[in-house]
Amino acid sequence: MYQQIYIRKYGAASVLSIEDKKEESTALASDEVNVEVHYSGINFADIVMRLGFYKDAPPKPFVPGYEFSGVVTQVGAEVKNHKVGDRVYGGSVFGAYSSEIRVKNWMALSLPENFSLEEGASLPVAFITAYAALFEMARVRAGDKVLIDCASGGLGTLSLKMLKAVGANVTGLTSSNSKKGLIESLGACARTHHEFWQDTKDDRYDFILNSQGGGSIMRHYDRLGPTGRIVCLGLSEGIKGGGRHFLAIAKAAIQMPRFSVIKMFDQNRGVYALNALKLMEDSLYIKKNLEQFNKITQWNLKPIIGKIFPAKDVVLAHQFIENKRGQGKILLAWR
Amino acid sequence: MYQQIYIRKYGAASVLSIEDKKEESTALASDEVNVEVHYSGINFADIVMRLGFYKDAPPKPFVPGYEFSGVVTQVGAEVKNHKVGDRVYGGSVFGAYSSEIRVKNWMALSLPENFSLEEGASLPVAFITAYAALFEMARVRAGDKVLIDCASGGLGTLSLKMLKAVGANVTGLTSSNSKKGLIESLGACARTHHEFWQDTKDDRYDFILNSQGGGSIMRHYDRLGPTGRIVCLGLSEGIKGGGRHFLAIAKAAIQMPRFSVIKMFDQNRGVYALNALKLMEDSLYIKKNLEQFNKITQWNLKPIIGKIFPAKDVVLAHQFIENKRGQGKILLAWR
Repeated sequence: MYQQIYIRKYGAASVLSIEDKKEESTALASDEVNVEVHYSGINFADIVMRLGFYKDAPPKPFVPGYEFSGVVTQVGAEVKNHKVGDRVYGGSVFGAYSSEIRVKNWMALSLPENFSLEEGASLPVAFITAYAALFEMARVRAGDKVLIDCASGGLGTLSLKMLKAVGANVTGLTSSNSKKGLIESLGACARTHHEFWQDTKDDRYDFILNSQGGGSIMRHYDRLGPTGRIVCLGLSEGIKGGGRHFLAIAKAAIQMPRFSVIKMFDQNRGVYALNALKLMEDSLYIKKNLEQFNKITQWNLKPIIGKIFPAKDVVLAHQFIENKRGQGKILLAWR
Repeated sequence: MYQQIYIRKYGAASVLSIEDKKEESTALASDEVNVEVHYSGINFADIVMRLGFYKDAPPKPFVPGYEFSGVVTQVGAEVKNHKVGDRVYGGSVFGAYSSEIRVKNWMALSLPENFSLEEGASLPVAFITAYAALFEMARVRAGDKVLIDCASGGLGTLSLKMLKAVGANVTGLTSSNSKKGLIESLGACARTHHEFWQDTKDDRYDFILNSQGGGSIMRHYDRLGPTGRIVCLGLSEGIKGGGRHFLAIAKAAIQMPRFSVIKMFDQNRGVYALNALKLMEDSLYIKKNLEQFNKITQWNLKPIIGKIFPAKDVVLAHQFIENKRGQGKILLAWR
């Protein structure tokens, strides 16, 4: 027996139901591994799809969840990178809210010795997002002038660590003065959003990471220098919680700009849009880029854990994120 | 006395007039150099502005021209990088169709010993364009899958040399089978445009350089892989010559796409638009990036010279480009 958490209908957190399942009876494929899940990571996209606003979600009923950590319990005949008993962390396109999971072997990675299972479950989505934005899309170089608009959050702090490692010249934005210390401790210059918008001369950025979406995209674009680029993060990162999800999402979607190439010729800039969950679905991309995960140990990218809920309290966990979005990653514990 | 070529009204090549001017009587500024021009480069943008379709052109009458080579005849009090008698090549935002030119000292570069003055006048616009597209915007890396859609032209051959130097995996497109040999000799795989469009599986490019504009932009965009980018070149490169300029330009402008950020989230790609002439106007950009010109000698980026017209035959030179767009750079010779 194992447990899974289902979205059977859309609505408030209380629609989530934890259910017992019989062990999978079909044989493990030769390239798969079976993992006893210890922790599942919660992402804001999970909440958006629970509300019914995530267009790429599978049809109901389905098990949400993109990331997990745990211990390998079984490996397919051709799997060479894992053995039974290995501590792993990994990604799954849906289905990770589960006390057991089967994934392709390349979707599970060996957890570095000095990382806990809690840290492992917090990394996949945030790391893939940050790495793709900074080093696959923007291709940040030493000396680049960089702006991170969500610098005190999980993705932001991870990004600041990575940017420091490559020698970029970073400004991190945050909502309140109280969080500036955290940003400065990670080697970046800290400003509030308000301070940044007031200082209209703070421009000529080589790279801006935009998580706010909507109207902020064009205003950030105007702060880029020649040959600079903006990377816009998908709604999964871009929308703050709180009660009025539908309005917030609809408003941000309406305000998402359209870039006319003809007009872009006047500015010599670039625009990317990033949905890391789509990257996780692309096995060619994941296989080609597995080496990037070595940076997790090389740069000691320890994530900040916010709060861990027992999996049976998933309703409380979702409500916690909706009501407050605490600092750090929120996890579900299965054991 | 010196000569300049003016656009006093818009129209066919015959509107161009070569005129005698008295020597400039105002003193040279402390950061300027005066150059006896030997060659001026002709760019397609010059023709577009002669026709009156270039929105960033100065008001009539004006002297067009973006690039020159020659010998320094005078330097301002604070100029340290040049002395009288130096062979230089450089850029000017308009005004380079002139037998003498005054520019800021950073807009003139010492011509490498093994480069002729003809080669010098052919390089500035093409080099700034190619370098900005490949290494400032796209930031091409070894192993990247790259498509150059104008591979047999001046900008294309320069790009292929640069891409080979950094170890990219390049496909070059050309209009006819007869030009494939040139592309292959520069280390790229050669295909005709027709072959490329037919082979719908040739996708997942990391970088596409698009000079064709219009509807081809979205079709190229669809050939990018995850985190890939397209760099669109301005009309100055994007429109073929021939009699019906107005129609061609209007058609390409109408077909230039608009990119909706909301839709871009499905693809994880990026879009840049490049107008190198705007970069030349940005002295902060030029000064910051002067080192990139060292690549001209390091990679031995010899341009292909197509035909040299005496400056007095500028009408014939423009007609030559309009009617045939010969292989290689077209220059005006002043001496």
